[in-house]
Amino acid sequence: MTQHQNRQFRLVSRPVGHVRREDFEFRTDPARAPAAGEIMVGVEYISLDPAMRGWMNEGKSYIKPVGLGEVMRAGALGTVIESQAEGFAPGDVVTGALGVQSVATVAAKDCTKVDATLAPKPLFLSALGMPGMTAYFGLLAVGEPKPGETVVVSGAAGAVGALVGQIARIQGCHVVGIAGAAEKCRYIVEDLGFDAAIDYKSEKVASRLRETCPKGIDVYFDNVGGQILDDCLAQINLRARIVICGAISQYNNTTPVKGPSNYLSLLVNRARMQGMIVFDYADRYAEGAKAMAGWLRDGRLKSREDIVPGLETFPDTLQKLFTGENFGKLILQV
Amino acid sequence: MTQHQNRQFRLVSRPVGHVRREDFEFRTDPARAPAAGEIMVGVEYISLDPAMRGWMNEGKSYIKPVGLGEVMRAGALGTVIESQAEGFAPGDVVTGALGVQSVATVAAKDCTKVDATLAPKPLFLSALGMPGMTAYFGLLAVGEPKPGETVVVSGAAGAVGALVGQIARIQGCHVVGIAGAAEKCRYIVEDLGFDAAIDYKSEKVASRLRETCPKGIDVYFDNVGGQILDDCLAQINLRARIVICGAISQYNNTTPVKGPSNYLSLLVNRARMQGMIVFDYADRYAEGAKAMAGWLRDGRLKSREDIVPGLETFPDTLQKLFTGENFGKLILQV
Repeated sequence: MTQHQNRQFRLVSRPVGHVRREDFEFRTDPARAPAAGEIMVGVEYISLDPAMRGWMNEGKSYIKPVGLGEVMRAGALGTVIESQAEGFAPGDVVTGALGVQSVATVAAKDCTKVDATLAPKPLFLSALGMPGMTAYFGLLAVGEPKPGETVVVSGAAGAVGALVGQIARIQGCHVVGIAGAAEKCRYIVEDLGFDAAIDYKSEKVASRLRETCPKGIDVYFDNVGGQILDDCLAQINLRARIVICGAISQYNNTTPVKGPSNYLSLLVNRARMQGMIVFDYADRYAEGAKAMAGWLRDGRLKSREDIVPGLETFPDTLQKLFTGENFGKLILQV
Repeated sequence: MTQHQNRQFRLVSRPVGHVRREDFEFRTDPARAPAAGEIMVGVEYISLDPAMRGWMNEGKSYIKPVGLGEVMRAGALGTVIESQAEGFAPGDVVTGALGVQSVATVAAKDCTKVDATLAPKPLFLSALGMPGMTAYFGLLAVGEPKPGETVVVSGAAGAVGALVGQIARIQGCHVVGIAGAAEKCRYIVEDLGFDAAIDYKSEKVASRLRETCPKGIDVYFDNVGGQILDDCLAQINLRARIVICGAISQYNNTTPVKGPSNYLSLLVNRARMQGMIVFDYADRYAEGAKAMAGWLRDGRLKSREDIVPGLETFPDTLQKLFTGENFGKLILQV
């Protein structure tokens, strides 16, 4: 039997501010053989997500922090090498929390088999995976947009934001995206069909929101927090819905999080601000994936992946999420 | 025919920070005779509310600001002196936005007749008036407390807060009030039946919340904003509801409003923060008043009014709301 070697990133210190390479140990160990109920998976694509930064911190959250000395948690896709679990056989393609490593030995019940003949594998980590489900349920179940309403999304060229804007367009909404580069703004308008884009790095967000949302904002899907959240709060309509999906501008703070000074706009406008975590919709993923796959098939929805080769580049590649360098769903190819 | 004299407070400058006497002109003019559709009302009790501070500011809000030179807006109760409106006769007792003045000539359609034989007149400005409706609909329609859940309310000895806590208790909730004096804390626990009280002026709110809410916070009814909102956000449960009813700690700010730094607790807990304005429930006031009157009658609900005599004391009496001096619903007796 082949002895598989597992190249892996383990978290060895809790980052302060931005993640540094020294916060991880990159090492190679023999892969562990699967016990009963487990599968050994050859990891091919690893999803890099803003939420990973939060998992590195100590403290109560929606999921427990990655322990010091543990393999860094990550969603990923791979092919089963060896199975001790019913219903899983070598060659099956699976997704799950396989971690930042080349070979994962995990409980089969925590993995999902996917039909890799239906779409390119990276899509199962983007439009048909967590970002897709986050966009679908975050916008439709929490944001509740109605046709003709104005939907604003930040991080609009990112994995979730680009899908949110397109789903809103499919719902018949006026859609404005906020992103941080001229090329990203061009992309979401010309390629994805957003009605307008705001480049927060070179334009004044507040005045551009007034121009691009002449009827005010009904739904704001927030991936970034900070000043952009405040700018949007100042222009919401009566009974607006603000979906808090993330706050990437605040994740590497070493100072306290900036709370939204304009939160009293919620009072004036009888509006609501509500947090969402995709895992809460797990029992409806099939519904979401079916809708997304349909829109992808008929060309109404586009998905863009930013695939970076080389497991060993992990800490630097992750950093692209926070500098705004990446464009589309960031995926590490093992 | 008697010529009625109207003593009145007119707003003559927009306050910066706290209200000063010089922001008003106190003068006496002959009362205006009612035109068709109008009534002349002898004002007896004037409701003093935190929201009045906001009405003095320029800028877009849920209601237009009081114009410079205009009589200061206020809810009030009085008796009709003269009527040119169908359905209103001298001697009728009415409530409405009569203003800070002794004689108001107003459109009858903007007033509501009340049956003053059912309760003492000041009650129609407290438990059976706006504060009562705010507490009833804010807690039940927006906060949606379930029996056994933990409800925290700030401004707990104030007009709205004291009612919110009692309604929550009637719903079978564990109720904790936050107030700013030992006597207020004693009152809400011993007289109103709250389960616990926190004196924010002499106790550490965060640690006292941990003690008094061992199961976490399901509903937080916020009248104050500022640090107390942040302390509560840090201890909310999954799917908690935060009702934003006011932010009295921020109304006299000359610096920007302090946004809630802990707002990402909404994300972690999939919780929501929602603003409420009582006017939105106008078509359900009858339902609210009926419930409140029933609870008052059977002794399960108590209402406390802080009645200050003398129209001329208006600017100083209003200030009691912001210094925390008042205790119960603040009412000016003309």
